Amino acid sequence: MKKIINDPNNVVHDALLGFADAHPHLITVDLDSKSVIRANPNPDKVAIISGGGSGHEPLHSGYVGKGMLDGACCGEVFTSPEPQQMIDTAHACKSTKGVLFIIKNYTGDVMNFEMAQEILETEADFPVRSMIVDDDVAVKDSLYTAGRRGVGGTIFVEKIAGAAAEKGMSLQEVSDIAVKVNKASRSYGIALTSCTVPAAGKPTFQLEENEIELGIGIHGEPGRERASLCDATYLAEKIVTPILEDMDFLGEPVIALLNGMGGTPLLEQYILWGEISNRLRIAGVDVQRVLVGNYITSLEMAGASLSLCKADDQMLSLWDEPVSTVAMKWGN
Amino acid sequence: MKKIINDPNNVVHDALLGFADAHPHLITVDLDSKSVIRANPNPDKVAIISGGGSGHEPLHSGYVGKGMLDGACCGEVFTSPEPQQMIDTAHACKSTKGVLFIIKNYTGDVMNFEMAQEILETEADFPVRSMIVDDDVAVKDSLYTAGRRGVGGTIFVEKIAGAAAEKGMSLQEVSDIAVKVNKASRSYGIALTSCTVPAAGKPTFQLEENEIELGIGIHGEPGRERASLCDATYLAEKIVTPILEDMDFLGEPVIALLNGMGGTPLLEQYILWGEISNRLRIAGVDVQRVLVGNYITSLEMAGASLSLCKADDQMLSLWDEPVSTVAMKWGN
Repeated sequence: MKKIINDPNNVVHDALLGFADAHPHLITVDLDSKSVIRANPNPDKVAIISGGGSGHEPLHSGYVGKGMLDGACCGEVFTSPEPQQMIDTAHACKSTKGVLFIIKNYTGDVMNFEMAQEILETEADFPVRSMIVDDDVAVKDSLYTAGRRGVGGTIFVEKIAGAAAEKGMSLQEVSDIAVKVNKASRSYGIALTSCTVPAAGKPTFQLEENEIELGIGIHGEPGRERASLCDATYLAEKIVTPILEDMDFLGEPVIALLNGMGGTPLLEQYILWGEISNRLRIAGVDVQRVLVGNYITSLEMAGASLSLCKADDQMLSLWDEPVSTVAMKWGN
Repeated sequence: MKKIINDPNNVVHDALLGFADAHPHLITVDLDSKSVIRANPNPDKVAIISGGGSGHEPLHSGYVGKGMLDGACCGEVFTSPEPQQMIDTAHACKSTKGVLFIIKNYTGDVMNFEMAQEILETEADFPVRSMIVDDDVAVKDSLYTAGRRGVGGTIFVEKIAGAAAEKGMSLQEVSDIAVKVNKASRSYGIALTSCTVPAAGKPTFQLEENEIELGIGIHGEPGRERASLCDATYLAEKIVTPILEDMDFLGEPVIALLNGMGGTPLLEQYILWGEISNRLRIAGVDVQRVLVGNYITSLEMAGASLSLCKADDQMLSLWDEPVSTVAMKWGN
């Protein structure tokens, strides 16, 4: 294992130290609860909190800031955070209007966030809701999930619900929008290589030199099939087809995220995006917003995923609202 | 070679297709001259043009936009662009106030940009200047360079000179500022793995499982020494020491860039930044601005580099000016 780390069991703590040091104007870090909080919590808005296992950076810590998340709970690498972290984070956000938990659909995350919600409902003086992201069309159930996994669609949910909260909407409204965005989002990912969890010290899985995994999860969970390495044109078809088969993306504007899994250069991501864009255009999909880059990664895994969100006017308008976080910035 | 590509000899063209498709509001791409131009060229400002071999994305194409570059010339992977590309790009920027070429110090780039400058000086109706970035303290000369290599300091030069041009400064003023920023910048990089140039099909160099290269160049050129894989704490010392030995960074604010080489996860980059920040603090360096992420990469190489810029009031103020490009955005 070749990594720039100290103690392999301490990587999340050590990275949070550096994260706090680098971005004091945007975030604060509570090292005890391993949570990232917006630098200036705003009690007059709904607080949006997400979290999950680390190793997917910039998700979620990089999305804490104005117009997106109020807090992020960081578990160990590929491991759910504990309920107490979520409870501490909810209190630290200081919202009087309530807290929305955005949970990627993994059994551990769902269980722990729901436990935190139950405890907060009895002890906190603010209301708490939660919603689950399950946008991955690749598999019905998987290694760590009952039902579909939550992957790149999380970016759409966090950005759009974050903008809704920033505009002063109620907990019910923000929660409804988050649910709506998830329902309108679909994703599919592929991997060329595995990644290595520091505490494990060896690759999560093995792929031969000429082999790729289609429908991969963000923790290296198996996907739909192993296939031979192919060119970008054919790979685009293998990615676009299952998404378009799963949902009708015609008739409204679409937001697209071509996401790098961590070890794939931008040069390759843009080649793949060009091919995917062609296929979407031929299929009649009206892509109006595009992100290309490393937004939800699996450490150093080589690979990519595509996420599409069929956005109505409200969703598109909230997507365009300003955002100011470490990893996503636009507008004023 | 496992890559998401079609023809290995066509990767730059294919990636530019996807880049143009993804970001039409910010940039246009001329596929013939393989250049990226700001979407709305402004004839009333100095045009800043950079370029070089591809494979370092987001450099330079990702920095085209308001407050930074007006044009970027894209060579093949790790290969200088041709003079004609630079000439075409200079004309496409439509500046009446003149063009500044920002050139990373590699023999091919310098020769071709200088040839383009000579031709433009005889045929164009706008003045042309050029300046060379040579911020890498690792080696005096290298495989592709007479003198020091131009690496991460390029980001400082492009951002700060870009802001100066955006504010309406003259070609002489913008050029003077670019030279000043380069003189105030130093960098040092390390690699854990090689990268593979698509057209070559095999890794540029070999490192054993327990070996790292200190003082690496952004094309995999050899550095100062091969060393054993060490922890992040010791690695930070190996990176910070040669930079601080080369220049006195005390007495003024410092801008820091902790750059990932492409294959190193953000988790590791932040661990390394935490350690580097500690060392800089102990040494009395007053770091006031920090970037952490993949800003100047070497395809999928695992590794990192540190760049520091000792910024006077003017430089710091220009650094803070708004910028709106694909890869760097802040302010209004």
